This record gives sequence, structure tokens and C-alpha cells, in this order.
Amino acid sequence: MRGILQIREDLKMAKITMAHGSGGGAMHKLIDSVFMRRFSNPILAQKKDSAIINIGSKEIAFTTDSYVVNPIFFPGGDIGSLAVYGTVNDLSVCGAKPLYISVGAVIEEGLDRDVLDKIVGSMAAAASRAGVQIVTGDTKVVEHGACDRIFINTSGIGEVYYRGLSVKNIRDGDCVIVSGPIGDHAISVLSKREGIEFGTTVKSDAAPLNRMIRKVLLSSEEVRFMRDPTRGGVATTLNEIVSAAKFGIEAEEPKVPVSQGVRQACELLGFDPLYLACEGRVIIIAADEAKDDVLKAMRRDAAGQGGKIIGRITKSHPGKVILNTASGGRRIVDMLSGDQLPRIC
Amino acid sequence: MRGILQIREDLKMAKITMAHGSGGGAMHKLIDSVFMRRFSNPILAQKKDSAIINIGSKEIAFTTDSYVVNPIFFPGGDIGSLAVYGTVNDLSVCGAKPLYISVGAVIEEGLDRDVLDKIVGSMAAAASRAGVQIVTGDTKVVEHGACDRIFINTSGIGEVYYRGLSVKNIRDGDCVIVSGPIGDHAISVLSKREGIEFGTTVKSDAAPLNRMIRKVLLSSEEVRFMRDPTRGGVATTLNEIVSAAKFGIEAEEPKVPVSQGVRQACELLGFDPLYLACEGRVIIIAADEAKDDVLKAMRRDAAGQGGKIIGRITKSHPGKVILNTASGGRRIVDMLSGDQLPRIC
Repeated sequence: MRGILQIREDLKMAKITMAHGSGGGAMHKLIDSVFMRRFSNPILAQKKDSAIINIGSKEIAFTTDSYVVNPIFFPGGDIGSLAVYGTVNDLSVCGAKPLYISVGAVIEEGLDRDVLDKIVGSMAAAASRAGVQIVTGDTKVVEHGACDRIFINTSGIGEVYYRGLSVKNIRDGDCVIVSGPIGDHAISVLSKREGIEFGTTVKSDAAPLNRMIRKVLLSSEEVRFMRDPTRGGVATTLNEIVSAAKFGIEAEEPKVPVSQGVRQACELLGFDPLYLACEGRVIIIAADEAKDDVLKAMRRDAAGQGGKIIGRITKSHPGKVILNTASGGRRIVDMLSGDQLPRIC
Repeated sequence: MRGILQIREDLKMAKITMAHGSGGGAMHKLIDSVFMRRFSNPILAQKKDSAIINIGSKEIAFTTDSYVVNPIFFPGGDIGSLAVYGTVNDLSVCGAKPLYISVGAVIEEGLDRDVLDKIVGSMAAAASRAGVQIVTGDTKVVEHGACDRIFINTSGIGEVYYRGLSVKNIRDGDCVIVSGPIGDHAISVLSKREGIEFGTTVKSDAAPLNRMIRKVLLSSEEVRFMRDPTRGGVATTLNEIVSAAKFGIEAEEPKVPVSQGVRQACELLGFDPLYLACEGRVIIIAADEAKDDVLKAMRRDAAGQGGKIIGRITKSHPGKVILNTASGGRRIVDMLSGDQLPRIC
């Protein structure tokens, strides 16, 4: 009896930790036990990057993301462009054409107006580059010390043009494709935050993926599923894909594209690039017959020129991601509980 | 020459202040000079509570709001229910049926899980009460001290069922109606924050207005415009309505409904109830011929039982809100630059 009371007490005393925002196992558990349990409905339960809702005869994708990246400016981007691209990409990976974006800014009292102006200008440029319109917004200001400079929420609406992107459509033997080198975004933010240089400056990969993804989806009807490997990186995304599925993934470490700068940073700091966030990459699962068309279409776009096949769907180890390592070994790639790097988006 | 350089320097050095988040004049200027200038497009330029966008043959309302209320629990509500109702109401006042809500939470490390659970439970109950579904979400965690417990963004999508709500449709002689006593939300938050009691506990008016507004809109085709008087209160909303218009508003102070508790608090603290935020009230402009139908429909709903005509549209002082005071005087009610009370939503 005391045991149960103790567990209850522990649960009651539990605090939110940084791990709960990591994209990893702790976050998934929090989302399931608090948000999914309370908000339970069939649309939310699909756990897609965007909710797919019906309005009239149209299928609409709807998504939201809050950005708390620290620092707010980093090589290759800033919190403003990141917030626009992140929401554009969450719509795109659901087979939707991103159309309209909302912006909710929470600003710390004392922020320089020219810093705000630079961020807002960056959002406008990002929206223009991605071909979306920022149509509604909200501004809140809190006392100095009540938030860290600026947090930005972007929500987005898109029109679904490619139906049937679903984990349920994935089949044994399908290819796992990544659209370019991984981890540059996380290392760019980290290097700026910690003031570390890795020989060369690593620039964030943050970019809008809508046009590249459209080319891919128009190239084949056998694209099964897509997700952008943001928080938790490629390893977490692959684990999300196989979680509760009747298949697993076999990935080939030597085939995973990693830039020189990211490789050096990982060696120096002991990070695994597979867990580093990207903000301009996508993981695509496609039928084996479709792989040439998909890669060709992907590489026709600047955002997909580094596209590579990095693995296969397999029935041999359901629910698991197995990596054949560069040194000839073989290991399970699990979801981390927390994260290597907090506040990268 | 030095003068111009000095002004430029001042502008460059300018910092964001609490007034920029107040809902008043400083905020409107910031939004115009930073956000509207950069994001300029015809949809945003309408400055409605929701953007009205076309998808296929449907008109969709899309809105966003971030909630930073302090304290997060107050008599009559909490940050969770407030966030749901606020977005439901921003859709409703645009003649839309609220359908889908997104939730973006930024949580401070160390927040008690049961506090989070209570807020999320409150959001679920609020969504159920309002008849909307929470279909997508995002969770971020920041270090202790990098935000004040929890900020919540809600964005929402609704389907427009009543067209033509626009300031442009307002005519000389139209009635100005408020759906109930004003200022209870602001005083409820303030009293909890400062630990002040005003004889009786003032409870927030926070409530979903979608059903009441639907009754009103189905009762007459001559409802011209609606807006919920949140930040900046009724005075600010009336000023927004007449700003840049060829008409003004003449309001009657004795007719403005104010509860006993709010009146006492205002006398004690020197507040003007006209500037106090409501989160469950709406200002309706309707044709004079429609007023009886509108009031009858409004009072048929629990949320509108205190509905009153408080003024008239007039051509005699364009762009101005004039108040006939209880003491028989007459004064201009202007938009404040800042706010009497920060962080009430």
C-alpha cells in the first residue's frame, strides 16, 4: 500500500525538466500522459506534423510550433526565419502546400527595437522565399526577466495536394532517404551559443522545403511517408516511424551524409550526428521502385542536392532501428530520453 | 543636422517597453511600424481579429494569440481556459464557427507536473464547453528563469457563416451594444496577483462567446461589426472602431454595465472601468432597426444576459469617442498609450 502511495507522491511531486522539451523519450511520454490523454480526439491521435482536417470538400493541414532558440541569431539564420521555415516544413511533409502563417510574439521588456525589427524583417523575407503569407499575429510584452528576449509561435495552414502519406503505407523493402547532410543546424546554434569554432563556421541548414518536397511528390505516387528530423534528429525521427509498427529500419552509417564541420564538432564534443537537429532536411520513405525518381526530383532542387538513401524498411526487427556502423559493427539506435542540446529551435 | 542624427540615434536605441504589449496606442504604433510594414499584404491589412482567407469555395477565419497572464490561476479561470476562449472568441466575432484549435506551450523548467496537468485539463474542458477540437500542438521547455512558468499560444480555424462584418458597413445612427458588465476579468487577475480583496471576490468573465454570437447573427442581417474588448478594454475597442472612420461614437456612461465589485475596485485603485480588459464580452454595432432582435437573441444566452445599448454611431465627431458622463459632463475617451494593467491575458 505504501508503495502505491509513494508512487503517487512521486508523480505528484514530479517537475518538468529540460528533457521534457527535447524531442526524445521524456517528451513523448509527457505528451502522451498529459496532452494526448486530455485532448484525445482522432485527428490529434494521428500524431502527424500537421493535423489534417476537412473543411468543405478540401483537406487542410494545420500546424503550430513555438520557437525558443538560444541564441536568437546564429550562422545561417535567426529565430524569425527558423519560425517561418519550421512551420512551412511541417505543412510540407504532410503533402500540403503551405499558404498562410500566423505569428505570435512574446517579447521581453527592454529588447532593442532594432533587434525586433531585424527578426521581423527576417520573417518577412523567409515568408517571401517560401511563398507564404503572414496573415495574422499577436504581440505580448512581459517584464524584464520573465522571458528570454523573444519567443515566437508560428502556426500554419496548407492545402493538401498529395494524399496517403502515412506510416501505415510503409512496406517491407521500402527505402529510407535523407535529403542532405544532417546536424548543421544544431551545431551552428551550439557553436554560436558556446562561442566555439570548429575550423570552419558551420551554417544552419534551415530552409523552406516546400518546393523540393513538391517536386518529389509529383515524381512518384509511391512516396509513403515524410518527416523533418528536427528535435532529436534523424535517430529520433526513425524511431518515431517504427514505433508501434510491424517493421523496423536498417540504416547504413557510412551512407548518412554528414558535413566536415559537423563531423569535426561531433568528434570534439562527443556528439552523435544522428541525434542532431536539422531544420532544412527531410526523411522520406519511398517504395524501392520509386527511389530513382525520388532522388532525381530531390536533387533537381537546391534544398535536396545532397539527397542519399541511408537505409531500408525491414520486417526482421519490428519497432527497432538498427545501424550498421562504419567500423563494421551493428547496434540499436534508440530514442534518447532527453537531448544532447536544448533550445536549438 | 545634429537634430536628425539625435532622433535617429534615439530611434535606434529604442527599447521595447511594457506599453508595447498593452493593447493601447504604443502597441498599435509598434504593430504598424514593425509588423504591418514588413508583412504587408491585403489580408493582414484588414486588421481583423481573425484573418479571413479563401480555401476552395470556403471562407476560413484564422487567428492566433499568445497568453502570458500572471498569475496563471485566478478567480473564474486560468491561463488554459483563457487561451481556448480567447481564440474561440476571436474567430466568433468575425462571423466564423470555431472548429479547430492548436496549442503551443512554452514551459519553464521546474514547473510542477500537476500544475501543467491542471492547465491542460482546463484547456480540454474549455474546448469541450466551446465545442472545438484541439487538433495539433507543440511543447517547448526553457531553463529556469527563461520564462515565467508557462506561456500558451492558441491558434484557431473557423468557418465563416456570416459575411459582411466590417467597420466599412457601419452607418450613422447604428447602436453600440455591449454583451454584459465590463472589467471583471482584469480585476479578477489583478486582485489575485496583488492579493487585494474588494469585499466580494471578483470572478473573471472569461467565457466562450460562439453560441451567443451565433444566436445574435442569426437574429438579424443588420449586424455591422463585432469585436471583443480584451486588452485596453471597451474604450480601446471603441477607438479602434472609429479610428480613420468618417464617424464617431457617442457613449453614455450611466448605461455601461459595471458590476459592484469592479466599481469598488476602480474607486479604490483609481482605474477607469472603460479601459479594463474583458474576456467574455463583445461589442456589437448593429442597425437601429435591429437592436431589439439583437438584444433579445443576446439575452437568450447565458453569456449575454447583461447586454445593454451603451451608445450610438454619429457623424458629428468623426474618429472620436465622446462619453456623456454620469455627472452630466462630456469628455473625449481616447486610446491610452500604455495600459493600466499589464499581463492580464
